[in-house]
Amino acid sequence: MPPLRTALLQSSGRPGSVAANLDVLEEAAAQAAASGARLLVCPEMFLTGYAIGDDVARLAEPADGPAAEALAATARRHGLAILYGYPERDGGRVHNSAQLIDAVGGRLANYRKTHLYGEFERERFTPGDRAVVQADLDGVRLGIMICYDVEFPENVRAHALAGTDLLLVPTAQMRPFEFVAESVVPVRAFENQLYVAYVNRTGPEGPFDFVGLSCLAGPDGTAAARAGRGEELVLGDVDPRVLAASRAANPYLGDRRPGLYTDLTG
Amino acid sequence: MPPLRTALLQSSGRPGSVAANLDVLEEAAAQAAASGARLLVCPEMFLTGYAIGDDVARLAEPADGPAAEALAATARRHGLAILYGYPERDGGRVHNSAQLIDAVGGRLANYRKTHLYGEFERERFTPGDRAVVQADLDGVRLGIMICYDVEFPENVRAHALAGTDLLLVPTAQMRPFEFVAESVVPVRAFENQLYVAYVNRTGPEGPFDFVGLSCLAGPDGTAAARAGRGEELVLGDVDPRVLAASRAANPYLGDRRPGLYTDLTG
Repeated sequence: MPPLRTALLQSSGRPGSVAANLDVLEEAAAQAAASGARLLVCPEMFLTGYAIGDDVARLAEPADGPAAEALAATARRHGLAILYGYPERDGGRVHNSAQLIDAVGGRLANYRKTHLYGEFERERFTPGDRAVVQADLDGVRLGIMICYDVEFPENVRAHALAGTDLLLVPTAQMRPFEFVAESVVPVRAFENQLYVAYVNRTGPEGPFDFVGLSCLAGPDGTAAARAGRGEELVLGDVDPRVLAASRAANPYLGDRRPGLYTDLTG
Repeated sequence: MPPLRTALLQSSGRPGSVAANLDVLEEAAAQAAASGARLLVCPEMFLTGYAIGDDVARLAEPADGPAAEALAATARRHGLAILYGYPERDGGRVHNSAQLIDAVGGRLANYRKTHLYGEFERERFTPGDRAVVQADLDGVRLGIMICYDVEFPENVRAHALAGTDLLLVPTAQMRPFEFVAESVVPVRAFENQLYVAYVNRTGPEGPFDFVGLSCLAGPDGTAAARAGRGEELVLGDVDPRVLAASRAANPYLGDRRPGLYTDLTG
């Protein structure tokens, strides 16, 4: 199986303008496809912006809404899958979600953030209740989570146990938490023997200052690709052969003792 | 409450000679006490050596055996607590254990490694069945685990949930796994909001080449103290005020959703 080339769009787009952000995505998809990528991953809430106050609720739309249709067209046009973060409307509730569109425009998976961060998010979103959301793409099992979710080792372990090969993590990681991008994410990849694509916003937005530092972390704990602090499209390869060899050398999943971990679910 | 000054003895002593290693401990205890330390932590299997083949079983002794008595005298003499790694004899079984002696010579806690590493250990030791072993020292709650145990996020999480402030981890960490000392250990401290004292052997021994890099990692993910690759006594402070402030700023334990983690114990 050939490596899955993955493009990480580190950008804040234009907060508050869905139309402008769809244009940014269209351009990024063209550039990613031209570089051989078969998957494009965007940051948390890329469709609308993150620090947009009450516009979160105003711009929220259902998983099968107009943005999903526009992105299906983009995906088809460039022949690659797209994961985008957006505020999802579901009746009276709004979720902080990420949706995966496949290369022919199908809605492959939709994930609702389970671990909301701080008052800002808890006032605006309802947390999701499904921990592990997956989809298969070209023989690679993808998993989806969002930002704060990945800081909980339990979440990533659940994905590893469910067979996730590449964990996609749109994020909105701000100062002074560079440590998460630089250290926590590579350790998650190593301790669970999978790839993690951590894709961040960048620069100041409302009260936040997003730190960039997006990365594709591999199962050896190194970053196969790492962005700086500014807007950037980063490419990296997810190689099933690397994964198989690394898993054989680091048998964490097989050496677990689940009977000793019961306090974690109490 | 004043900080608990902790001394990390990064040394391989003299593998195969219990008498020589008790002498090294006596000298390290004197030096640590003179520097204000109230706790001295040694590497995995420090009492006997690690790569000593069948001598593991020959030199194993009960938790209340002669080495415990000798170390009780050392602890009393210098007025500080000592955690030492040793092969523990329990009838026909041998455990890879670490025992904590208090400053007046009492046996405060004994831990048996639950996650054995590789064929080398599985051939010689019986794994322990108690995940969380703790003791209180001068108002700080100590936890104990050994080497490979700390690479499993579930283990450290169980300690955090049980209130461990300072996790003591005697280790025998070899090339090419520097990543564990450099990155995994600080991430464990950060994600669980506790201190981790990771104390390693050093240099070649049998088929292994131990990497040193012992550290006292704090709840902000930085190393409050970090050794190089050679023999070294490293000192660091465990500060309850730092811990309280960091926990308030990083409420990981409160933001967990235990109901979503049930796959981890199946």
